[in-house]
Amino acid sequence: MEHRNIIGYDFSEGTGQKLQGVNPKTNSFLPEEFCIASSDDVNNALTKAQEAFQPFSKMDCLKRASFLEAIADEIEALGNELVQRTSNETGLPNAQIIGERGRTTGQLRMFATFIKRRDWVEASIDTAIPDREPIPKTDLRKMMLALGPVVVFGSSNFPLAYSVAGGDTTAAFAAGCPVVVKAHPAHPGTSALVGQAISNAAKKTAMPNGVFSLLFDNSFNIGRELVEHSNTTAVGFTGSLGGGRALFDIANKRPNPIPVFAEMGSTNPVVLLPEALTERSDTIAVDYATSITLGVGQFCTNPGLLFGIKSKELDRFKSQLSTALATTNPDTMLHLGIGNAYSKKSDNILNEESVEVLAQSTTEAEQGQGRPTVALAKGKDFVNNPALHEEVFGPFSLLIACENKAELEACINSLQGQLTGTVIGSTADFENHRIVIELLEQRVGRLIFNGVPTGVEVCPSMHHGGPYPATTDARFTAVGIHSIKRFLRPVSYQNTPNELLPKALQNENPLGIMRLVNGKYSLTSV
Amino acid sequence: MEHRNIIGYDFSEGTGQKLQGVNPKTNSFLPEEFCIASSDDVNNALTKAQEAFQPFSKMDCLKRASFLEAIADEIEALGNELVQRTSNETGLPNAQIIGERGRTTGQLRMFATFIKRRDWVEASIDTAIPDREPIPKTDLRKMMLALGPVVVFGSSNFPLAYSVAGGDTTAAFAAGCPVVVKAHPAHPGTSALVGQAISNAAKKTAMPNGVFSLLFDNSFNIGRELVEHSNTTAVGFTGSLGGGRALFDIANKRPNPIPVFAEMGSTNPVVLLPEALTERSDTIAVDYATSITLGVGQFCTNPGLLFGIKSKELDRFKSQLSTALATTNPDTMLHLGIGNAYSKKSDNILNEESVEVLAQSTTEAEQGQGRPTVALAKGKDFVNNPALHEEVFGPFSLLIACENKAELEACINSLQGQLTGTVIGSTADFENHRIVIELLEQRVGRLIFNGVPTGVEVCPSMHHGGPYPATTDARFTAVGIHSIKRFLRPVSYQNTPNELLPKALQNENPLGIMRLVNGKYSLTSV
Repeated sequence: MEHRNIIGYDFSEGTGQKLQGVNPKTNSFLPEEFCIASSDDVNNALTKAQEAFQPFSKMDCLKRASFLEAIADEIEALGNELVQRTSNETGLPNAQIIGERGRTTGQLRMFATFIKRRDWVEASIDTAIPDREPIPKTDLRKMMLALGPVVVFGSSNFPLAYSVAGGDTTAAFAAGCPVVVKAHPAHPGTSALVGQAISNAAKKTAMPNGVFSLLFDNSFNIGRELVEHSNTTAVGFTGSLGGGRALFDIANKRPNPIPVFAEMGSTNPVVLLPEALTERSDTIAVDYATSITLGVGQFCTNPGLLFGIKSKELDRFKSQLSTALATTNPDTMLHLGIGNAYSKKSDNILNEESVEVLAQSTTEAEQGQGRPTVALAKGKDFVNNPALHEEVFGPFSLLIACENKAELEACINSLQGQLTGTVIGSTADFENHRIVIELLEQRVGRLIFNGVPTGVEVCPSMHHGGPYPATTDARFTAVGIHSIKRFLRPVSYQNTPNELLPKALQNENPLGIMRLVNGKYSLTSV
Repeated sequence: MEHRNIIGYDFSEGTGQKLQGVNPKTNSFLPEEFCIASSDDVNNALTKAQEAFQPFSKMDCLKRASFLEAIADEIEALGNELVQRTSNETGLPNAQIIGERGRTTGQLRMFATFIKRRDWVEASIDTAIPDREPIPKTDLRKMMLALGPVVVFGSSNFPLAYSVAGGDTTAAFAAGCPVVVKAHPAHPGTSALVGQAISNAAKKTAMPNGVFSLLFDNSFNIGRELVEHSNTTAVGFTGSLGGGRALFDIANKRPNPIPVFAEMGSTNPVVLLPEALTERSDTIAVDYATSITLGVGQFCTNPGLLFGIKSKELDRFKSQLSTALATTNPDTMLHLGIGNAYSKKSDNILNEESVEVLAQSTTEAEQGQGRPTVALAKGKDFVNNPALHEEVFGPFSLLIACENKAELEACINSLQGQLTGTVIGSTADFENHRIVIELLEQRVGRLIFNGVPTGVEVCPSMHHGGPYPATTDARFTAVGIHSIKRFLRPVSYQNTPNELLPKALQNENPLGIMRLVNGKYSLTSV
């Protein structure tokens, strides 16, 4: 395993200082030492990225697609070494890691297929009308071009699918943007292995030097310098609200501000409507006990808030949820920092006035573990107490019992932006609670009916985003092919000689793609 | 003419203080007094906008289209009163105002036609696969929804097309967003007339109270409060870099940041390549003397920088441009502030070391007028002196004479983001200067060949935007139908009962629109 920073096709020992991974199950250091990057490494990586930008963004899509496919192949070729390393660094079960590896390689291949279609450049042509009165109309054509070098911050909770070769990196590569990744310090070995896989793929498919770099750091310095560097044109981040907002603020204070796409999690409210509870509170309780504790609650779509209206059916649900949660077990969280933050934040909520424990795993948690817990609060307290709105990253949920429909509406109306919102109800429930559904729709990126928010399908109709603070930009998704739009910008070409136009815009339509020609979609030449 | 602030369907006298328009030709106050808005007006306007948001955004597009069409009709019905008032407040010639009015009503009707097509919601459907292994695939559907209330700042240089009922307002209305406009204090009467036209149109087409408000202010206070208000979800602005950046910074310091779409102008570099100068320096000189002085240089696409390589052909062009510019006349600028800023900024550049006047109108300017001027600088000075990169809003251009091709490339490489970049050349020129074209393409929103940057065609292939500081977000256009994308966000619907889905996503495709169904475009039901 390479222990140095990857700077294009070179390596750097950086500052000479080292960092190590920690096995969260044993809370002991793993033996390998990784080189902490220097400011020179930041500058070298982004200088090379800038040099790679034109050849990489202007190459034929098929070639760039082969790079994405080669990355997927190289990741698979790492075999059990990668699974073992990821497991050692994150405490995640092997089955979950293998599933996530499949999602990661699936994303890479999906984007390869997508860019091969070539129509993602959104070609548009308006032909000239030289004799138009009062002034002639000139020939105008437009398509999407890559933004430039992108900085990606690996997330801790998806060490493969939202880390070095994860969704942000894949979308940026697909768009034609070189990528500099800041490895998450909680999984340096996983990052090094995947980074080497990307480097190998880049060499095998003859990508320009600088298309990819990987830097290690366990402080905020390298991240700040990456976002501040003048060559950086966009940032992808998945993580905490504090971290994402800090990067957003740095990016917006630059002389030339750049977009930061930070996906910062969410409390993913769930509304439990009365008739559904009457009909099937038992299965809802079991489904939610599972969703709350899935992956020790370490998903950004974990259901952190449950809302119901006081009734004997809600009391029955509470009892059923308690029973279901009692038999779950505390488990090791991704790293000690997350484990400690979970204890602290869940305690903070439990210490708020009139909040009490409703349901809990009967087993106490050891240090670094998350103990599944559901707390109980009142609707009027929720509306008035911002502390109860805060995300507790882990297997924690707050059940808010509302006095009536009006209080439920007030609760939903008090919510900030969310990745998801879920409504559990019968047909009659939906009819009776249209306002609640509407208030939820205004606040979320994805509205779910009779399901759980965990489980993010990777397909064109998935929007994984949402109003702030779920993300820093509600208009873009972090999952699925449309996530490429974050790293593209339109450019118009006016009165341009045919041979100087990008192929997508040439008269003959040499790529055979769908284009908007004088306002109508067409596959033909102009 | 209504002199009060328009707050939905009500009026407010605001603080009791007044502002007046000024005739820039005479530099004397116009008699009408307009009421300066209060903080209460800001809050009332945005409270009503929030109340109007759901009914307005969820109404049938055809109804919203009729509102846009009615605005165009009402503006036309203002007839000569509007033309006269705009002329009195801006000093613009009637022909230009009538042309701009046509562009304004044209934009309104273009957006009406566009939203009637209904496919702008980008409907996408991925149907369920209940028996998929290892986990079932759920039904997911996605479409664009309106962001929420939008604040628009009228620009001074387009008192109709980028002011109260201009491009930003029209795109926001089309998307389904209520709009609160801060009137530009340089044309309060024009703003009042157009504001009343929008109000009339809203009433006639039964739009919800609060869909539109118009506030007057001649300080920065009301603008700041509008951007800071918690109901505001996006901001449209056309104006100076200083003003746009200030609003951008306010918006990003909010507890929940919101996007600011600021179009802040540009120096619009033009590269004059050698063979073209050999072949036709005379016509280029005449075309550019016209483009530099068009509308007293008060267009954001005014060509502020001309680049050439030293040669006897460039000398001849300089002489021809001087001759052409000599016969142009100084003219009144939009208001005294702009006139004074023009004098100061052009003097600043002329006072830079080794910069000299190359060409100038032989007539001296009176106060408030802009005197057409082209200055001359050296390539190496341009690269090293940021002062020479600054926009001078008005009929001013800087010709940079480069020693050679390498210095020309260094000049282009030193440019910041631009709305446009232009290359004047022959086929051989383009072949010999591929690097310059590539460097320009990376920095601009629109690349023009053998033309002038002034004149912005309103059509789907027009991108009016560009990297910072041309705009605050290179990914969105301020002109044309795609400018609607600024005010939309995607929302996914998971496992949603058919009758609860928006019509665009229902199984039967009741709107008959093109949809992405399981990754393929389709007009049929699912």
